Amino acid sequence: MERIYLDNNATTIVDPRVREAMDPFFCRQYGNPNSLHSFGTEVHEAMRLAMDRLYAGIGAGDEDDILVTSCACEGNNHVLKGAWFDLIRRGPKSEILTTPVEHPCVRNACAFLETLGARVTYLPLNADGVVDADILRRHIDPARTALVSVMWANNETGLLFPVRELAEVCRESGVLFHTDAVQAIGKVPVDLARVPADFLTFSAHKFHGPKGVGGLYIRKGRALTPLIHGGEQMGGKRAGTVNVPYLVGMGLAMELAVDGLAFEESRVRALRDRLEEAILAIPDTMVLGRGAPRVPNTILASFRGIEGEAMIWDLNAAGIAASTGSACASESLEANPVFVAMGLSSELAHTSVRFSLSRFTTAEEIERAAAAIQASVARLRAISSSYSGAR
Amino acid sequence: MERIYLDNNATTIVDPRVREAMDPFFCRQYGNPNSLHSFGTEVHEAMRLAMDRLYAGIGAGDEDDILVTSCACEGNNHVLKGAWFDLIRRGPKSEILTTPVEHPCVRNACAFLETLGARVTYLPLNADGVVDADILRRHIDPARTALVSVMWANNETGLLFPVRELAEVCRESGVLFHTDAVQAIGKVPVDLARVPADFLTFSAHKFHGPKGVGGLYIRKGRALTPLIHGGEQMGGKRAGTVNVPYLVGMGLAMELAVDGLAFEESRVRALRDRLEEAILAIPDTMVLGRGAPRVPNTILASFRGIEGEAMIWDLNAAGIAASTGSACASESLEANPVFVAMGLSSELAHTSVRFSLSRFTTAEEIERAAAAIQASVARLRAISSSYSGAR
Repeated sequence: MERIYLDNNATTIVDPRVREAMDPFFCRQYGNPNSLHSFGTEVHEAMRLAMDRLYAGIGAGDEDDILVTSCACEGNNHVLKGAWFDLIRRGPKSEILTTPVEHPCVRNACAFLETLGARVTYLPLNADGVVDADILRRHIDPARTALVSVMWANNETGLLFPVRELAEVCRESGVLFHTDAVQAIGKVPVDLARVPADFLTFSAHKFHGPKGVGGLYIRKGRALTPLIHGGEQMGGKRAGTVNVPYLVGMGLAMELAVDGLAFEESRVRALRDRLEEAILAIPDTMVLGRGAPRVPNTILASFRGIEGEAMIWDLNAAGIAASTGSACASESLEANPVFVAMGLSSELAHTSVRFSLSRFTTAEEIERAAAAIQASVARLRAISSSYSGAR
Repeated sequence: MERIYLDNNATTIVDPRVREAMDPFFCRQYGNPNSLHSFGTEVHEAMRLAMDRLYAGIGAGDEDDILVTSCACEGNNHVLKGAWFDLIRRGPKSEILTTPVEHPCVRNACAFLETLGARVTYLPLNADGVVDADILRRHIDPARTALVSVMWANNETGLLFPVRELAEVCRESGVLFHTDAVQAIGKVPVDLARVPADFLTFSAHKFHGPKGVGGLYIRKGRALTPLIHGGEQMGGKRAGTVNVPYLVGMGLAMELAVDGLAFEESRVRALRDRLEEAILAIPDTMVLGRGAPRVPNTILASFRGIEGEAMIWDLNAAGIAASTGSACASESLEANPVFVAMGLSSELAHTSVRFSLSRFTTAEEIERAAAAIQASVARLRAISSSYSGAR
């Protein structure tokens, strides 16, 4: 039985074309790009093409930086700690504004900075589960706020934050704006010519590139203290021998992701909607954020009376990969923090399952998944102590 | 004409067996290892094998940590900045001891920490070009010294530092000891059961693994503030989705490197010595550190009257890759800082060329390289304004 992968917000298959593009750089063109000889220089063209694809993919300006990092976690730490070093440590600013539903790397880096004396304010969410411009305006204080960090799309609900408006509020206030766009690339248009963000992070393995490489966009003139000091790579802003194969792969993956946006918006969305309808056809189910702007590939569903974990195991036994939330926190069995932040009941927070599709998902897989979900709900509710039929 | 790669201290070819071992993890076993379903769990065995190989390769204890990083620069920044956060920022310690010949990432991270108020002392080198235990004893102060950071082997000269004795001095003084072992792995035995270092960094691409992955060894109980805060990966000590293919590749590369130590010590050393003799047969040449303990693969030679850069270009035109020093600094045309630190004349510091071999280097390549070096010396000295025949 072919397994079905519906956990694309956790990670994605490397597109075979990306693997193919990386391959020459392991055993043939293996030079260090900083070397002066031909082994070093012969990789420059492929690197330049990859960087051009990254710039084009996010609408970065020629004079802006995109640092090649090892992951979005690194990029997010770079921005948050850079803001602390440059703006907060000795003043004049003291505060970072963020949300309670950021990825753990943002939340945990913020928690660390609080131990260093930074003030971190977690902005409340509106009824749609996002931070809007009004909320930000009520909290931002140009005298105090060093940085605002708000994700482009939430990894668990798929909800889209109004980053353009948020970035504009920040720009009007003279406050730096960072957005973690990990879950947005390849799902919705990400265009920094339209969104005046100062920093943006992404990770290749969320859009069919390899794990262990990402990008940190830095708008011209906004460079912060580096996270990794060292050699001259990336203009001294991020040291470490560049991972040439993965940069090449990430560049192609970005191009494919952007080229595939229409397919994502039509075909992937249609399959997602089909699965969502099948889920909602089951009594006592709900889908978070169904009425609000969301990425086209994500469903966060709640099944009354069913522990999310239990359904994950049922589905896994049926060869279907889904998640209760962020893979980065999946070993902790706490209630989904996004649900908690959205003010949902504890029961709801424990009964959530995330399904996330990709351009490799097929209609047949969706039908099989729908049937497996129905079977799991029936089985688990039959043995549930907390479920006593439709209410 | 087949090119000849003699710049293995800058980076190495990925061993074809390593490439082969990584390949299944791009498009087949692509799960996020933190996921609970089968796509996630099926990669655990390969990761565990890779980690076991890393532990065995450096003699790490079961209860010690090896964090998978993106490069040695990251690991070195982790240790240096962690020491600042945990021991220096609020006291009681104030100082880092290091050497003037560390890799740029150590020197530049230290320079950054100086701007934060840390005192950084660059230990003097002895006549052999290394820091010895006596020198360290004269400078270490348990009340003041937070960390000692000394490389295992120098990237430019190949000189081996007496890290066992240095680590023992630190242990006696209750001071943390870090060693950058990037240039030691696969060239000389690296055994943390014998060397009581607290932290050790390495980078896969220096031992025929891929670029963009490395390791940070942390002895049990010595964890410092993470450089990259985030999810639960690596026990919360280093966030970011693990780069599974590269971890698998690095594990195998480590095993191959350790298995190949005897070959390195015999065959690679013999080829190195053959090339060294050919160089020294040219009048007015010298080899740095020839009498002192060195890794078996490295020659740092000086050719009187010849700019190192000029010879690199000559050799490159002949299809031979060599270097004037660290690739990470090769775009800056300053005098070799290692030579300067060793107290050698400015002329000598500008006339150095590094040749670094690997297990893939052949006898035929060495003969061709020797001939090309001789031809280059003859050509360049004939047009040199500073060379007027043997002195």
